[in-house]
Amino acid sequence: MNATSQSPGDHPDGLMDKLVSLAKRRGFIFQSSEIYGGVGSVYDYGPLGIELKNNIQSRWWREMVHGHANIVGLDAGILMNPEVWVASGHVGAFSDPLAECLSCHRRFRTDELTDLEAGRADDQQCSVCGATGKWSEPKQFNLMFKTFMGVVEGESSTVYLRPETAQGIFVNFRNVMDSSRLKVPFGIAQVGKAFRNEITPGNFVFRTREFEQMEMQFFIEPGTGGYWFQEWRAWRMEWVRSLGIRPDRLRFHDHGPDELAHYCAEAVDIQYRFPFGWQEFEGIHNRTDYDLSAHQEHSGKKLEYIDPAAGKRFIPHVIETSAGLSRLLLVVLADAYTEEEVDGAARTVLKLHPSLAPVRAAVFPLIKKLGMPEIAEKLAAELRRQHNVFFDVAGSIGRRYRRQDEAGTPFCVTVDGQTVEDETCTIRHRDTLEQVRVPLSGVGQWIAAAVAASPTST
Amino acid sequence: MNATSQSPGDHPDGLMDKLVSLAKRRGFIFQSSEIYGGVGSVYDYGPLGIELKNNIQSRWWREMVHGHANIVGLDAGILMNPEVWVASGHVGAFSDPLAECLSCHRRFRTDELTDLEAGRADDQQCSVCGATGKWSEPKQFNLMFKTFMGVVEGESSTVYLRPETAQGIFVNFRNVMDSSRLKVPFGIAQVGKAFRNEITPGNFVFRTREFEQMEMQFFIEPGTGGYWFQEWRAWRMEWVRSLGIRPDRLRFHDHGPDELAHYCAEAVDIQYRFPFGWQEFEGIHNRTDYDLSAHQEHSGKKLEYIDPAAGKRFIPHVIETSAGLSRLLLVVLADAYTEEEVDGAARTVLKLHPSLAPVRAAVFPLIKKLGMPEIAEKLAAELRRQHNVFFDVAGSIGRRYRRQDEAGTPFCVTVDGQTVEDETCTIRHRDTLEQVRVPLSGVGQWIAAAVAASPTST
Repeated sequence: MNATSQSPGDHPDGLMDKLVSLAKRRGFIFQSSEIYGGVGSVYDYGPLGIELKNNIQSRWWREMVHGHANIVGLDAGILMNPEVWVASGHVGAFSDPLAECLSCHRRFRTDELTDLEAGRADDQQCSVCGATGKWSEPKQFNLMFKTFMGVVEGESSTVYLRPETAQGIFVNFRNVMDSSRLKVPFGIAQVGKAFRNEITPGNFVFRTREFEQMEMQFFIEPGTGGYWFQEWRAWRMEWVRSLGIRPDRLRFHDHGPDELAHYCAEAVDIQYRFPFGWQEFEGIHNRTDYDLSAHQEHSGKKLEYIDPAAGKRFIPHVIETSAGLSRLLLVVLADAYTEEEVDGAARTVLKLHPSLAPVRAAVFPLIKKLGMPEIAEKLAAELRRQHNVFFDVAGSIGRRYRRQDEAGTPFCVTVDGQTVEDETCTIRHRDTLEQVRVPLSGVGQWIAAAVAASPTST
Repeated sequence: MNATSQSPGDHPDGLMDKLVSLAKRRGFIFQSSEIYGGVGSVYDYGPLGIELKNNIQSRWWREMVHGHANIVGLDAGILMNPEVWVASGHVGAFSDPLAECLSCHRRFRTDELTDLEAGRADDQQCSVCGATGKWSEPKQFNLMFKTFMGVVEGESSTVYLRPETAQGIFVNFRNVMDSSRLKVPFGIAQVGKAFRNEITPGNFVFRTREFEQMEMQFFIEPGTGGYWFQEWRAWRMEWVRSLGIRPDRLRFHDHGPDELAHYCAEAVDIQYRFPFGWQEFEGIHNRTDYDLSAHQEHSGKKLEYIDPAAGKRFIPHVIETSAGLSRLLLVVLADAYTEEEVDGAARTVLKLHPSLAPVRAAVFPLIKKLGMPEIAEKLAAELRRQHNVFFDVAGSIGRRYRRQDEAGTPFCVTVDGQTVEDETCTIRHRDTLEQVRVPLSGVGQWIAAAVAASPTST
């Protein structure tokens, strides 16, 4: 078998369009409410997409929570007391400056209007209507979605859809620490949805108004921030690589003093080389005691840690690891997408790490007779107790293989004429295209072992 | 060992208060934003709560999606095109009639004001201010939370937080069916958040404004609804029982003709006998072709199924299984909560099914010296690759056992003096209190086997 693919490190031409198309065709990602024309930058995950997302999330949870004796999980609500967002600074400052074209009334982020930002708005042309130099003064636009809770007149109050999951962890700090009897250093991890009324969403699921975060806040003694920042910086990159992402498409981007958010002492992005350039999908931040101090002051509740042995008390500092789940899913898809030629024929294949693949194994009868479908269905039912399995009988065997290549299924199990005679079947490996013959009774274990033995799997 | 508990079938006295207290003390469930005084009926899941919720959700997903060749998953957004809710009828009719006390201006659901409903409002006394008979005409109050998306003047639009997950499945019906090449009968399953601005939330996490649903819509040929309704009615009860819920606290409640929603031909609730009475936590509904027909008409997009073999085309009918994840979690907690006397001493224990328990095993060194902590920590680290494990060294061994009883941990592994000599340790079973001695190297497998062998586990 000869398989040649595009030159290492390069994405295929037009990858984003191809990904959007494959994602819809194979059921990874659909535009939300598509039959009604969609809704501004929200996406739905189809049958393969939700399995992929669940697998990424599950590997993160096992690594961060189950894998660490001193990290526990949390799941805070999307709706919180609005004072949380006053204390965190979001009500006051989570906004973008927008300028309006006085001719067509479209609004633009001022950082997209380079001339405006530089104070030379008079020669800036509106990209929508073409008018020149007619701009309003920039106005702050808050990115939080707001809604109203309660029914009693005068008591119904404005609440926000959380724009980040982190604050749910900070306001639960005391309850979690006390109930779990945790000692510094310890972490609290959370996966959940967040919402931002983005002005310029885009690049498919890279920047969306409804998205998911995987965050961990690590509470430490003051003075140890530099050490723990470096530790988590290295550990997080190691984990990303364990998903099988190509190392030459990954890099760190350390924030210079001019890039740091006001609550950060140190920050680094983990970036992926997307077809649209190097972009962040995870950040590690040294947030000092900014958040807990702000909530202590605003709520009037003590958020200190008391060190029982040393008799010290302090407000812990925080190292945060903040990943975009939806973004990481796009990284995984973009990195897996491969076009190659196999024996003179083109194929598209998602080379997903076997631990992430939505379908672990497909089971096919070679042909629709001679008892093969019955044996294959029975095998699929047995495997289903251990793996996510897809059964397919439609079309030529070559076509069925190609469909599974596009879905990223690592193993295809085929029941053929020989199976009827000796109860063995073939297992075809997605990447090498090699086939091995295995007893029917050993298929489940063979697959489990192959997944466990996959390089960089944890 | 003698263990006696309350009489079978009865909940302990004051169970709800005890559950709320234990849930906070042990880190199952906290009031959201508690340091700011909370927010109307939203709850956060703590370290043990999120593990319990994940385990329930994972068993549901494995049963419904991975366990069925003809059911696939979906994860639709919370924000959808607002036309979805026009077509579904929610914009027009998802509301409660409220009447206002003209004296204190509190609003009440008219079904809570029995006399008002019966047209005898003049002698109804306001339960808040005590005024008699001063009521406004009832007004409809829509239960959907609304928010605003977009930034361009005149283009920003009202969107809703979905009040149910089902519509995400109906509007994706075509995309899912086409991409997954599904043939009727087939199902689409989803777990996700929904939001309702409930007028009278209450009973802890039983009725909350932010909650999670686990729903499956099963698409079938017209005329087969009666058959599939009965099938799913039986299968869902069987699954609930497999979680170890006591059968004498479970029952069906079939809806009579006067109880049926307008889109339902048949409906049944699965109810649990809570301390506050029999209440529904899952419903099975024969929704006919109501939903797909409404969306086909409103969107102008064909939502038919074409039977390739028979050459028929039809709008599929739908049998829905709709469970409240947050409610089921309350069922599981309430059912597991047990007070009993062990050798003359009282203990509180959560008798959770081992497959649901937040912590699979706790590992203790008997005392803090003679090398026991080091051996125990090494064992915990090894077990952590396979199970969610808690390590605890603080307090007497009896106290540590009691803490794990309250957390519902099925197995406690203790490293003692004999371990240092022969590399064996004890495993104590939460319910029977029996202890067995097992080689250190065999603990992981012993626990896995014990979970798999637990009654009613799948």
